[in-house]
Amino acid sequence: MLSVVVIGTGNVARQLCLAWQDSDSVEVVQIIGRSIPKEPVFEGHLINLMKDLSHDADCYIIAVSDSSILTVNQHITVFDKLVVHTAGSISIDTLKPHVRRGVFYPLQTFSAGREVDFSTVPVFLETSEDGDKKILQQMADSLSGRSHWLDSDKRRQLHLAAVYLNNFTNHLLFLSGEQCRPLGINPSMLHPLLQETVAKAMALGPYKAQTGPARRGDNAVIQEHMELIEDPMQQEIYKVISQSIQSTYGNELQKHA
Amino acid sequence: MLSVVVIGTGNVARQLCLAWQDSDSVEVVQIIGRSIPKEPVFEGHLINLMKDLSHDADCYIIAVSDSSILTVNQHITVFDKLVVHTAGSISIDTLKPHVRRGVFYPLQTFSAGREVDFSTVPVFLETSEDGDKKILQQMADSLSGRSHWLDSDKRRQLHLAAVYLNNFTNHLLFLSGEQCRPLGINPSMLHPLLQETVAKAMALGPYKAQTGPARRGDNAVIQEHMELIEDPMQQEIYKVISQSIQSTYGNELQKHA
Repeated sequence: MLSVVVIGTGNVARQLCLAWQDSDSVEVVQIIGRSIPKEPVFEGHLINLMKDLSHDADCYIIAVSDSSILTVNQHITVFDKLVVHTAGSISIDTLKPHVRRGVFYPLQTFSAGREVDFSTVPVFLETSEDGDKKILQQMADSLSGRSHWLDSDKRRQLHLAAVYLNNFTNHLLFLSGEQCRPLGINPSMLHPLLQETVAKAMALGPYKAQTGPARRGDNAVIQEHMELIEDPMQQEIYKVISQSIQSTYGNELQKHA
Repeated sequence: MLSVVVIGTGNVARQLCLAWQDSDSVEVVQIIGRSIPKEPVFEGHLINLMKDLSHDADCYIIAVSDSSILTVNQHITVFDKLVVHTAGSISIDTLKPHVRRGVFYPLQTFSAGREVDFSTVPVFLETSEDGDKKILQQMADSLSGRSHWLDSDKRRQLHLAAVYLNNFTNHLLFLSGEQCRPLGINPSMLHPLLQETVAKAMALGPYKAQTGPARRGDNAVIQEHMELIEDPMQQEIYKVISQSIQSTYGNELQKHA
């Protein structure tokens, strides 16, 4: 049984603690947090002072916001144990001067009030010491069937892909919903289209699934849409994504021209 | 029982015919198409010549590509019946000189090989003659529990929202998948993140669901991402969507600055 200390009580920390609650191979022996959320998962566990940090755990997981990792790391005065963070865009070297450094990056969006099924979440692992691979692998295997070794540079690229997928997609959903409101249409009317869009992209792959005016090179409709959009920033979004679609399928469109 | 003629054998026409196959209130009496797809839904029905067009149907549905609607309409020489098209961005007036014009626009993406559950699809209706409202409403009710009356101008706006939601979201999925390939990561590893992104946006609404560097005003990560992106067009996409997110939450970010 691996013993881990979780530092942080935010969404990632909470989901990790929940997922390890019934684990046979990983035990959360301590949770460190500045504030003490009133939640069953934290009960009986939470120590709110870093000075009380256990010195006997196999792994110390820093699950706090990106901007706090450096500060939290400096307060971990246990130097012979494995210290890991959970962030996509932060280098493993941020955990220096610890010698046994690691990263445990679950590729998922975690939010208050939403339970995540960890068994489907890919976890990306990195370690500075080959000897610690076994610990990280056991931690990943205890949660998910899908783990991958990835260095900090590549993880940063992956995080960028996740920003496109999650942050940017979500903003497009926001913009399309806002366009519906003045029409007297509840944005939830778009949900079936959204669900089919995603199901289709996953089934066929987004390259084959692409449709629409930019895909078929229909400049008349593109022009008409550009004139309908009043906000210059949204116009720019429309223009540049349409250009990118046209450039992706450019050779094919020329063939049919 | 309403009798309808479906003109077209593409994805929309096919799904309409499938959905009305077992209907108690709408019967597809004729399907007109240039080519004859070998599919059970078309069997025994398909007439491939416009000159054989029945003169006795209650409604004639033009379900062809946007650019063909005008031409197909000119070939419909039945002038005392209701003629409708199914396109989001085409005006009802395109169906002139027919006096009894209508629009039957299902807000969904239809593709070969994918069955759509019509009962969840919102259908947007328009008619030039109040007397025909009943026919269109009956056609919509026979398929879906969600129909809405919307004029051509508003439908064009709605179609624009659908382009953001479907076409642009799909392209972002494509771009994020392409970013994974050089990392040795199969784009399907992004699927759990995608599914949670969409589930969360639908549950909380995309305004509340927004996360990421642009949302929290983290210019250091934005700058780092911009430097990671090599393609100028993708850089522009990153920049303008991040700006749009920052402008959406601008006042809030200032408050916390």
